[in-house]
Amino acid sequence: VGRVLIQEMERSRLPVNQLRLWATARSAGCRIPFRGRRLSVREIDPAEFIGCQLIFFSGTEGEKGASRLYARQAVDSGSVVIDNGSDFRLDPKVPLVIPEVNARDLKSHRGLIANPNCSTIQMVAALAPIHRRFGLRRVVVSTYQSVSGAGRSGLEALAYETANPKSSYAASPFAQRIAGNAIPDIGGLGEMEYTTEEWKMVREARKILHDPKLSIAATAVRVPVAVGHAEAIYFETRKKVSLGRLRTVLAGAPGIIYDRQGYRTPLEVAGRDGVFVSRLRPVPGSANSFLMWCLADNIRKGAATNAVQIAQLLYSQGMLPGSSP
Amino acid sequence: VGRVLIQEMERSRLPVNQLRLWATARSAGCRIPFRGRRLSVREIDPAEFIGCQLIFFSGTEGEKGASRLYARQAVDSGSVVIDNGSDFRLDPKVPLVIPEVNARDLKSHRGLIANPNCSTIQMVAALAPIHRRFGLRRVVVSTYQSVSGAGRSGLEALAYETANPKSSYAASPFAQRIAGNAIPDIGGLGEMEYTTEEWKMVREARKILHDPKLSIAATAVRVPVAVGHAEAIYFETRKKVSLGRLRTVLAGAPGIIYDRQGYRTPLEVAGRDGVFVSRLRPVPGSANSFLMWCLADNIRKGAATNAVQIAQLLYSQGMLPGSSP
Repeated sequence: VGRVLIQEMERSRLPVNQLRLWATARSAGCRIPFRGRRLSVREIDPAEFIGCQLIFFSGTEGEKGASRLYARQAVDSGSVVIDNGSDFRLDPKVPLVIPEVNARDLKSHRGLIANPNCSTIQMVAALAPIHRRFGLRRVVVSTYQSVSGAGRSGLEALAYETANPKSSYAASPFAQRIAGNAIPDIGGLGEMEYTTEEWKMVREARKILHDPKLSIAATAVRVPVAVGHAEAIYFETRKKVSLGRLRTVLAGAPGIIYDRQGYRTPLEVAGRDGVFVSRLRPVPGSANSFLMWCLADNIRKGAATNAVQIAQLLYSQGMLPGSSP
Repeated sequence: VGRVLIQEMERSRLPVNQLRLWATARSAGCRIPFRGRRLSVREIDPAEFIGCQLIFFSGTEGEKGASRLYARQAVDSGSVVIDNGSDFRLDPKVPLVIPEVNARDLKSHRGLIANPNCSTIQMVAALAPIHRRFGLRRVVVSTYQSVSGAGRSGLEALAYETANPKSSYAASPFAQRIAGNAIPDIGGLGEMEYTTEEWKMVREARKILHDPKLSIAATAVRVPVAVGHAEAIYFETRKKVSLGRLRTVLAGAPGIIYDRQGYRTPLEVAGRDGVFVSRLRPVPGSANSFLMWCLADNIRKGAATNAVQIAQLLYSQGMLPGSSP
């Protein structure tokens, strides 16, 4: 996510005067290209936060803590923080934002803004335009999540196990061999036999949609795909709605690439921006009930792209310290 | 399926006096071991149906037609036919049977019995004990289906594409590269934007459960797994039911291996019999709504094992021509 974040910053229209890159001691020292220069990655030092208008934090499940350790200090130093981790997402004082859905929530920020979980972003981006117009009575979602969601070690595990059909990758972030398998355990089983990933989808979606009781039944499954998450989403609307009306709404929804015919797959959306919806269809014999197939690049719209979109909004609305768009 | 069917016959307690093996001209000639002998596969010839008590037909999607061409002749020759194909499953005169669920339907057979679709069998085996006691108001299912469901060429496509990351298998039965991908298209998109696999799940489940209006919303997805189908199943019961009661029902259900804690994966159930249910959990905030994770070896319980179980029932209940159990 960190590397793609830098690429997205590079592509964005943000006027970046200076970019500072920090990492843990382990990754410090490497050099990363940015707008024609090569920037060194330094070991993180809160003293260097001073003077930054905006700081991104990003950490995978296994390497959590950067934002927990440093985000408050960064805010106290006068910076705005966009955190891609899960530590602050459910904090009522922290806006949790998908720009196409709830940009308005940014207005109440107190220096810290959270980027939602990857599988939440694509699901909510697709459901929000429907929720706004017709209400949602119930959502059932099953995910097909790529190994890159577990960071670099996830990609390494899939590559190693694909090349070694008899053995598992020693440093794998997954509970079992992922090559040739499907594992219904993302983040570990906990409360009520749900995984942390499933709870993220439920709780983050409710917060972003401002619908704290929305019924969401989620099953999150890791599959042997490198990049790109897919979701099979069932939803029931509160108001009566026709298939034709839903098609029109999705076709006009911001950030959604809607295919009325055919479908996309993870291999097709990897490396692309946006949320891809296809196979929208009514459930036979059930009124106001529909299914759809929803895809996104979990590193891009599911993480880095969404974070940079938030930054652009903050900048264009004059919400960064000392910025004049 | 054909090869595993022979293995299952070998393991069964059926007193097989003589086993005749037929195939298309392409596969005729090979020799297959059975109870210490090596039997030759001959090109199919309806004249040889005479004197058979029981004939199995099996064909993959791409090689349909064996039962369509020969099943009626086999019945007319005095044999009972168990058909693993989809040609007769929805015929109201043909029982569609999962022995643990609707063995009783066998009684009305007129010589032809259909074996359900693989993804139907495991879903209905897991839902039937719940349906019987509490009724079902609604089912939402997303599948994670292995390539062996598409027959030998499916396994070949996955193996070839795994070894050749840049190219697709020329004779692949899949619409796109399956290695590293997830394809929501099993059997082709048709009526109402549903695939034939999804319609099979809906219509076969309604027939087996004798509940012709049951609401089933299905998404069938092919994933890069060799053997073993997984399903994320959401269900709402008509009667009020507690999690504890459901656990007891599943733990005591015939043919179900229920894990109250943890979960299984396709790699763990491949080569095993039975339907594996785990991760049973209530949907937060919704009464009488639950999720579960359901697995089976699609070649065994999803096809061959179920067919041989039907044969054993027919034999033990004296429903085979000239048989005395």
